[in-house]
Amino acid sequence: MGANDRILLAHGGGGQLTDELIRRHILPKLNNETLAELGDSATLNVASKSLCFTTDSYVVKPLFFNGGDIGKLAVCGTVNDLAVAGSKPVALTLSLIIEEGFELGLLERILASIGRQARQNNVDVIAGDTKTVEAGAADKIFLNTAGIGVKLAGVDLGFEKISAGDKIIINGTIGDHGMTIISQREDIKFQSQLKSDCAGLADLTCRLLENTSGIKFMRDPTRGGLAATLNEISVASARSIEIREADVPINPSVQAAADMLGFDVLNIANEGKFVAIVSPESANDCLNICKNHPLGRRAKIIGEVTKTRDVPVVEMVTKIGGRRIVQMPYGRELPRIC
Amino acid sequence: MGANDRILLAHGGGGQLTDELIRRHILPKLNNETLAELGDSATLNVASKSLCFTTDSYVVKPLFFNGGDIGKLAVCGTVNDLAVAGSKPVALTLSLIIEEGFELGLLERILASIGRQARQNNVDVIAGDTKTVEAGAADKIFLNTAGIGVKLAGVDLGFEKISAGDKIIINGTIGDHGMTIISQREDIKFQSQLKSDCAGLADLTCRLLENTSGIKFMRDPTRGGLAATLNEISVASARSIEIREADVPINPSVQAAADMLGFDVLNIANEGKFVAIVSPESANDCLNICKNHPLGRRAKIIGEVTKTRDVPVVEMVTKIGGRRIVQMPYGRELPRIC
Repeated sequence: MGANDRILLAHGGGGQLTDELIRRHILPKLNNETLAELGDSATLNVASKSLCFTTDSYVVKPLFFNGGDIGKLAVCGTVNDLAVAGSKPVALTLSLIIEEGFELGLLERILASIGRQARQNNVDVIAGDTKTVEAGAADKIFLNTAGIGVKLAGVDLGFEKISAGDKIIINGTIGDHGMTIISQREDIKFQSQLKSDCAGLADLTCRLLENTSGIKFMRDPTRGGLAATLNEISVASARSIEIREADVPINPSVQAAADMLGFDVLNIANEGKFVAIVSPESANDCLNICKNHPLGRRAKIIGEVTKTRDVPVVEMVTKIGGRRIVQMPYGRELPRIC
Repeated sequence: MGANDRILLAHGGGGQLTDELIRRHILPKLNNETLAELGDSATLNVASKSLCFTTDSYVVKPLFFNGGDIGKLAVCGTVNDLAVAGSKPVALTLSLIIEEGFELGLLERILASIGRQARQNNVDVIAGDTKTVEAGAADKIFLNTAGIGVKLAGVDLGFEKISAGDKIIINGTIGDHGMTIISQREDIKFQSQLKSDCAGLADLTCRLLENTSGIKFMRDPTRGGLAATLNEISVASARSIEIREADVPINPSVQAAADMLGFDVLNIANEGKFVAIVSPESANDCLNICKNHPLGRRAKIIGEVTKTRDVPVVEMVTKIGGRRIVQMPYGRELPRIC
């Protein structure tokens, strides 16, 4: 098949064409011995008795955006879920649902991006699946990646460890991914200044967990943004949280796009960020480790866990000194953001 | 939400509605403590250093069919990939891609089916993801399950173990799943006699592997059917295979439907069958274990691995004593069969 060729239904039929698609187009991009065996399952030798296991499907629209594409997202998103759970990602699966007629050239670009990100994140894609559906039954291509990570020795993160006085660290600016996607969709003119933060965080999180002992909990603020993540942490730990608007890092172009389109940046998805809840004694060490890493240069302590009065609540001290409740977003802000 | 309610885009937005969907509708059906923690990743304690890891997406149409539904398929299909690799399935992830407007009542039925099958197959669904896409961007619902299995001690299956004289066993009739799906789609009148064989095979495969030592290789003949699986085995092991048409178990209603619609039953997908390549000394033991299990009552030795002349080839001795090559199907027989 050439680059102008398109996916046929038969590419998902389990016969000759499926075999050709896998051997000519998929395996070379994701090159590793385990995948090349094409078994019903891949075999994985693990060095730990405690594993992390996660899954995410990716339906982002558009498929290609400034700073990434659906393939990069599918690797980074799943790597990040494993990373914030306190593990080192070791293996991914990749499942494709492709609409009949999808350009093979675009599939090749997506697979190349997946391969590149897998190498950068030190994970192998060791098992996969390809399904095709008739034209109109899916929007171009959907991906799923599941992942396995090996728990870092001695690391035990959990809501129950969170206590009043703990510091809240974020590793950089928020809203970049979500505002890039929505701006490209809306085709607004300053979109060229926006770039998704899509990145795999495991190298940084492993460095933090291996070199400090004060990290209580981590989560990546994807759909629902920082607001959803802080609310989840507050509810699950039964602790109130206070953040300072002035300390939350936001790129001016992201703020401008959000203002223009009427979004609250706190609700906007990220894909290269984590929120860490850290003991006060460890906060500066963690911040320094972040600042010495390419993915943490703009890290900030954005607030604290506070004493809970009646109900746990997330509050923000605004730039002009007021206070407002940061609510759990309703959910309709941005469909198909990841 | 009531049973007549429908999925909104906001159910996938990561906010309040996503939380409500997960807590009210998903968790109760898949009840287990690990999933209920709703972490970014689930933690899994494993008793082995050697794991199997697999993934499959499910796009079957129609969603509900005689003998099963997309949810049952999503559990059994992934369980079976782990089973034929020589492992005991221990955990699954579940990822949903749902079209806006999909009836919540149907989602509930699918989730209930997933929960029931997970219990029957002794696996927990320990992590998940829910995405929504706008009306028209997907055909109702697509599922993905990834799975982890623990390799059975002392079991080491592989193409390289296959040698001339080995027997080929199948655990029952072929074509039932595929012909059920296609008949329901075509709305042909004898469809009521057709029933998918969709079932989880791990109990039977573990019993075989734990009680005999002659199993060389196993694979489940799903897309592409028995023809594709035998060709894959032949090519990968560089051995020829000979099967006897008279010994391949086929239900008369499946044969009739295939004849009417012009399909070769050998190419039709199954979802409750495995092909095992077994040493001649162990073949009868394996057959007896199958016949004493509900999923193997109609098991048969359907042929042998033979001496390869020039190129490995799959041949069938027909009922009237002729010989024909069983070719790798091209792939377009049956889209969206699983």
